[in-house]
Amino acid sequence: MTAEPPAEPADAAATGDRPRGISRRGLFLGTAGGVVGGAVLGGGGGLLAGRAIAQDDSDSALQYPFYTGLHQAGIETPPQRYSMFMAFDMAAGTTATDLQVLLARWSASIAQLMAGQTIGQVEPARTDAVAGDTGEALDLGPSGLTVTLGLGPDLFDARFGLAAKRPPKLRALPTLPSDQLAAATTGGELGLQACADDPQVAYHAIRDLARMARGTATTRWTVMGFGRASAGPHQKTPRNLMGFKDGTRNISTPEEYRKFVWVDDGPAWMRGGSYQVVRKIQMNIEIWDADAVHDQQAVFGRTKNEGAPLSGRVEHDTPDFGAEKGGSPVIPPTSHIALAAHENNGGVKILRRGYNYTDGLDQFAQLDAGLLFIAYMNDPEHFVRLQTKLGSVDRLNEYISHIGSALFAVPPAPKRGGYIGERLFS
Amino acid sequence: MTAEPPAEPADAAATGDRPRGISRRGLFLGTAGGVVGGAVLGGGGGLLAGRAIAQDDSDSALQYPFYTGLHQAGIETPPQRYSMFMAFDMAAGTTATDLQVLLARWSASIAQLMAGQTIGQVEPARTDAVAGDTGEALDLGPSGLTVTLGLGPDLFDARFGLAAKRPPKLRALPTLPSDQLAAATTGGELGLQACADDPQVAYHAIRDLARMARGTATTRWTVMGFGRASAGPHQKTPRNLMGFKDGTRNISTPEEYRKFVWVDDGPAWMRGGSYQVVRKIQMNIEIWDADAVHDQQAVFGRTKNEGAPLSGRVEHDTPDFGAEKGGSPVIPPTSHIALAAHENNGGVKILRRGYNYTDGLDQFAQLDAGLLFIAYMNDPEHFVRLQTKLGSVDRLNEYISHIGSALFAVPPAPKRGGYIGERLFS
Repeated sequence: MTAEPPAEPADAAATGDRPRGISRRGLFLGTAGGVVGGAVLGGGGGLLAGRAIAQDDSDSALQYPFYTGLHQAGIETPPQRYSMFMAFDMAAGTTATDLQVLLARWSASIAQLMAGQTIGQVEPARTDAVAGDTGEALDLGPSGLTVTLGLGPDLFDARFGLAAKRPPKLRALPTLPSDQLAAATTGGELGLQACADDPQVAYHAIRDLARMARGTATTRWTVMGFGRASAGPHQKTPRNLMGFKDGTRNISTPEEYRKFVWVDDGPAWMRGGSYQVVRKIQMNIEIWDADAVHDQQAVFGRTKNEGAPLSGRVEHDTPDFGAEKGGSPVIPPTSHIALAAHENNGGVKILRRGYNYTDGLDQFAQLDAGLLFIAYMNDPEHFVRLQTKLGSVDRLNEYISHIGSALFAVPPAPKRGGYIGERLFS
Repeated sequence: MTAEPPAEPADAAATGDRPRGISRRGLFLGTAGGVVGGAVLGGGGGLLAGRAIAQDDSDSALQYPFYTGLHQAGIETPPQRYSMFMAFDMAAGTTATDLQVLLARWSASIAQLMAGQTIGQVEPARTDAVAGDTGEALDLGPSGLTVTLGLGPDLFDARFGLAAKRPPKLRALPTLPSDQLAAATTGGELGLQACADDPQVAYHAIRDLARMARGTATTRWTVMGFGRASAGPHQKTPRNLMGFKDGTRNISTPEEYRKFVWVDDGPAWMRGGSYQVVRKIQMNIEIWDADAVHDQQAVFGRTKNEGAPLSGRVEHDTPDFGAEKGGSPVIPPTSHIALAAHENNGGVKILRRGYNYTDGLDQFAQLDAGLLFIAYMNDPEHFVRLQTKLGSVDRLNEYISHIGSALFAVPPAPKRGGYIGERLFS
């Protein structure tokens, strides 16, 4: 974890068909770049040597590149198992230079963290020195860490000379029918999404980046997520805390990414970036658990065990929204999949990248848990459109509340020597 | 995950030196029983066939037996990666029969969950039927799940006819010097500790057991833990959120378990059981992070990177509390390891089984996180003795607050056909 030069893994390809120390998960990399057995497959070209981490956790050596010059990692990257999201505001009196320095320091540090390195000495020689790195991720390896940095709409004002740089599509989300937003979990001028296969690695990244921001940016809200809820066809579909598979029809092909995720309009600094919508969605778990499964299935439009659309037999059957039985639609038009389907929304799709969260018990001693919904799209209006529809008639609304919300512009990844958002200031 | 009969794993021993689908972690089982490649090594004898789970997560097939007739799992079991703890109180007006039925239903369900099965139908045939199992752990395998059930001191009263059954050693913990306990995270008449290598499996177990208790027991408090903080010599020592290794000198040999963990006195129903102390220890993370590492090392008595005692060179060097340099002790007598060491406490040791936790941000937008400290011992007085000493002079107190506390008697595991605590009622 210290900043030693990269070395060849000692045991790569020691077993027959796959390297030891890399689990099968490491082989299901989908369309994004990643490390297998020590070689970094750069999403945007560029081949780095990986580092061998002596470790009993088979995912710890997985490593993604940062300086690709293309899209930031953590969007197309196959969802890691854990995430930690944190929103920040710039501190009072800070300037454009402060913001630039923070973005530059964060970028350099994210690159080091994603390579499995510390971001400073854990044990400085001077006896009065404070550590550069808090140390709790020592020995845990990169663990597939990605940190994705976003810029909120409120950042684009006179304080930082950015008023004219705001992309037209980056506007605060309107009030949506399902909103029960709490100020304590809403908004933010900067956002960090850390995802990793080890929760301590994700926690450490956010903690040390927040620490680095002290005096420049203040923390606003945070959510820790586990057990990714959305995956797509390259991974076995995980389940949300309602017990249903989540992510069956997620965006997965390069064509879909081009068409729905990557920005190719507006200001040059955002080309190749994406817009990130974060929603903290509380589930009324104990009320849901008391609902008959037959009704739960009508709410989602899918079966619970298999995850098949009610019109089909297996999970990946295409839903047939026209199918009828006894004169009624087999998939209720008010079901979640009917309302959210691209077939019923002018072809619009968004990339979902959600995680489950738990906040313990609420004031009524009921389980407080839900979905850390994160989605990427090349136009936030797509989310607004879908959520407006879902929020007005979705039967799921009986069981969920949107209590947190934020929107960020996620610029493309820098090339080596650059930093995220640098082109904003040129 | 459904209750099919056990089958041989399809790919056991398919690679040279270890079975595919079982990570190296699976091979470091320490002194407790576990599954390797599908065979359950019963802690108390009894050989079951394991089940093969087609899965891309290499730990998901790990399975521990429940009906051993010896100690409950989750004590000597090598710490899994995640935990969820929940405390309950019996509902008003409940009787001894209600308690017996709950303990029996919980026991049967824990056995099923630990075998990777659901605890009822996920998709009942009747359209008005509520699911027996909430479903979010379907396909995730047993993932090394253990659920450990404890009985709090307040349970032993006239309501349940247990006033005369209370072991003399089971008394509410006295107020300790470090206490800043919050009522919302203290006490409990029943406690469940679920540990698993997948957090969704641990969450699911607690959720469904809590659901089953509705009407009989009410939830009191809960903490989700990650990144086990205490391990012992059979595992690589993990780090707590202060960045220090935690668990280097933990209990590990059968002799130590016999001497310090397993109860062999008091009422017959507790023989082979243990006492469990749970403490929610909040860390003042941001104050800690601003402290010089040299000082942090003096607080713990160990180096940060290596985890060596300040008197030694490597982690497992025995601390030399008599070592001096320039007339002063090399390991400060007020350091955590000096105060907690068995050498300085009449030989007393307790088994630590802690996890890190995070509660997001506190009201001051500071990171709210810490240690879910869980310890096992054959006399709660051992914890009281150590904590009294630590709480009075430990320099760590500047950086931590004990905000939650509970004590439970953990009876031995039942044999097949029995349930946890059954002998209390005979």
